[in-house]
Amino acid sequence: MFKKVGVVALSAGLIFSGMGSVPTVEAGKPEWAGKGKPDWVEARNGKQDVENVIYMIPDGFNADYAKNYRLYKGEDAAWDKHLKGMYTTYSANSSITDSAAAGTAMATGVKTNNGMIGLNPEGEELETILEASKEQEMATGLVSTSAITHATPAAFASHVESRNNETEIARQLIANEVDVMLGGGMNNFLPETMGGNQEDMNVLEAAKERGYKVIETRQELMNQNDIALKQDDKLLGLFAGGALPDELARDKKVQPSLAEMTETAVEILEQDEDGFFLMVEGSQIDWAGHANDAGWAMSEVEAFEAAVKAALAFAEEDGETLVVIGGDHETGGMTTGIDGSPSNASPEILKKVKATGTHMASELNEGRTNSQEVLETYTDLEWSASEIQQIQEAEDPVVTINELISNKANIGWTSSNHTSVDIPLYVYGPASEDFTGFHDNTDLPKFIAESLGISLDN
Amino acid sequence: MFKKVGVVALSAGLIFSGMGSVPTVEAGKPEWAGKGKPDWVEARNGKQDVENVIYMIPDGFNADYAKNYRLYKGEDAAWDKHLKGMYTTYSANSSITDSAAAGTAMATGVKTNNGMIGLNPEGEELETILEASKEQEMATGLVSTSAITHATPAAFASHVESRNNETEIARQLIANEVDVMLGGGMNNFLPETMGGNQEDMNVLEAAKERGYKVIETRQELMNQNDIALKQDDKLLGLFAGGALPDELARDKKVQPSLAEMTETAVEILEQDEDGFFLMVEGSQIDWAGHANDAGWAMSEVEAFEAAVKAALAFAEEDGETLVVIGGDHETGGMTTGIDGSPSNASPEILKKVKATGTHMASELNEGRTNSQEVLETYTDLEWSASEIQQIQEAEDPVVTINELISNKANIGWTSSNHTSVDIPLYVYGPASEDFTGFHDNTDLPKFIAESLGISLDN
Repeated sequence: MFKKVGVVALSAGLIFSGMGSVPTVEAGKPEWAGKGKPDWVEARNGKQDVENVIYMIPDGFNADYAKNYRLYKGEDAAWDKHLKGMYTTYSANSSITDSAAAGTAMATGVKTNNGMIGLNPEGEELETILEASKEQEMATGLVSTSAITHATPAAFASHVESRNNETEIARQLIANEVDVMLGGGMNNFLPETMGGNQEDMNVLEAAKERGYKVIETRQELMNQNDIALKQDDKLLGLFAGGALPDELARDKKVQPSLAEMTETAVEILEQDEDGFFLMVEGSQIDWAGHANDAGWAMSEVEAFEAAVKAALAFAEEDGETLVVIGGDHETGGMTTGIDGSPSNASPEILKKVKATGTHMASELNEGRTNSQEVLETYTDLEWSASEIQQIQEAEDPVVTINELISNKANIGWTSSNHTSVDIPLYVYGPASEDFTGFHDNTDLPKFIAESLGISLDN
Repeated sequence: MFKKVGVVALSAGLIFSGMGSVPTVEAGKPEWAGKGKPDWVEARNGKQDVENVIYMIPDGFNADYAKNYRLYKGEDAAWDKHLKGMYTTYSANSSITDSAAAGTAMATGVKTNNGMIGLNPEGEELETILEASKEQEMATGLVSTSAITHATPAAFASHVESRNNETEIARQLIANEVDVMLGGGMNNFLPETMGGNQEDMNVLEAAKERGYKVIETRQELMNQNDIALKQDDKLLGLFAGGALPDELARDKKVQPSLAEMTETAVEILEQDEDGFFLMVEGSQIDWAGHANDAGWAMSEVEAFEAAVKAALAFAEEDGETLVVIGGDHETGGMTTGIDGSPSNASPEILKKVKATGTHMASELNEGRTNSQEVLETYTDLEWSASEIQQIQEAEDPVVTINELISNKANIGWTSSNHTSVDIPLYVYGPASEDFTGFHDNTDLPKFIAESLGISLDN
């Protein structure tokens, strides 16, 4: 199977913190290398029978998204029956977390300040559950629909003061030798985006030198199989310069879905006899929430659910895989009902929305005289003359389009930012009962570590 | 102890459905009366050791109220650590339930249409968990801060097509011989409120004939003790004509708190060797939600928490009491953060609010020239000239006052009605683990029945 690389040095990232340095760190070896597996390997397997972990994060998702999606879908979602409890999300410096602090908490078990990745508020490096898994010879993976260098995936395998330092994050992800990384963010791996004449900073080349196979299209992803991976050891799939297209705009032949990326990641990672840790993020649920775009939100939740179904299908067959599903925070203050609406929530009408509000607004001409045409092209909803007029006269047509669509679905919003509400936790697999109850987001990686019979060194 | 009255006829209510009939139904006897306790009594005790059930319903409360209250309080609420899962709340005819259909679902295990009490959508009577408990010789009680004839308590011991028929509900509550009822609603028990010359409809007199001791003040409630109850068998405490005063306005010497009513009810009911079933509703959380009044909402949650603490204290000492805590639906589309706010939720400032928005608005003079004085009298918050002006010029000063206060707390609202979001479930005591996971509101009375080793006949 994999040519294992052993323990990755936790401080690998620091070596790249100077902008001019070349990523040449060699991964270390575990202390017991060559001495046979230590006792904890047996203990772990004996204790819970958890061999693999798939940690799935629907960014921005809470109980209101869950309820609206259930109505949109017309039946329970794949996760509903696996509900185990809820958890708090506040960060070290705010009752309302950002995705960097939330990702750090969910990856390391330690609260940090908003904006910080993989560091405690004092700036000290924290071990992540991915890194701890890797120390135990497990294969590791990150999958997201944002840039793979975005806050949530970054928090699992990099350590930087600011989430915005995505080129540094790219270098650390490669240095950390995460076995499979699939998502967007090619720009952060290329020298031309780093400014100046820093040819030695082409992280993509460094990745290739380190044994990464780099792919850029859905077709290449679909052609991956065991043989290719055995040759190349590691896979870096970057399917867009920045984020992947939103789910409503995605060209399904060209760009992979979150489910396709998840399936491929699992197929590759499961080759490792020592088990694997995989984090999968549904990144753009959060972005839809920021935009108060209900149609986009539901389509992203649907794409995330397809990935969850793939993970659950694997876990059900495998029997030794723990699937942990939970948002990092709520986004938008979404509610399942609004003032003045009939006494029904109607998210099912959002199936008739075929584009984001942002995309629709971008199709409007200068005088917005084509408002009706655009709305009828991208939705199968009925639009009154008054609504068309509102869009034509709106200060920001994106806001108005999203508001009118949300009103039709009786979905409310109170913010363009995150909120502080507790998040539902869904867990499937061996040890899933251990997750029952009321927790903090920092408890999740601790429970996962415990299920693997390992501990986080924080 | 109690002089037990045995099984109450399920159809008792129907006998009073004609407005002119006199409440004279005699309660029936269990089939096995005089033959010794049947097997199920042993089975029940053996299975779960649940002797008593306290079912506590914070009307309108969901995860957003929970989070805002935790921030308001500055630490976890009494229920947090007892979180077991969540449940759906939709009614038979709407994705957004009202309290009648929700109460019926939570009392009987069957969905009904909004507005209906203790009946299925076809109008057939449903057995409630209170009635099933009474059939097993258990003592029963209802406590609320609304009229005791209001939808939620009504759903546990009456059966009417419309929740608005509160005089009929009053008659059925008495006919059902609920052992202890404490709350508001005196008007619904008196003949003068029933219109016309229906002297024979004085339900209060009928209650006294049936062995109820009727009390009207906190002082009388505080003076209740075992002896008084042994003499009178049953207690009806009606401390207001309609609802009790809101928690911010309550005269703590004159009107009992929800916690005081709960404690007294438990003290009385626990005398029954066959155990007891008690429903306690924090009614006005919902009303604060309808008004989008964040200060009122937090004060009502606080009052409800005091009642929960009393119940948990009893249950912890007793060891055979199951405490089930969960809202019937969310009200107001409350969120824990709003647009444009600093990246923090600040519900703690609501401790500086000393009256409801409705009360403050009622103190404004005709030109509202005393707006600043009123706001400074009833809050310890700072008010800008612009805010004072907004209140003076508001179409509805109640709405504006509540909105301004919510903004200061960074609490959002999207509705003046209920929403459809799932509700957190908290359970303490033996059999509490059986409540783990994702459920429907109709599952709750079934789980409770199972914990008691009984079944609902629906």
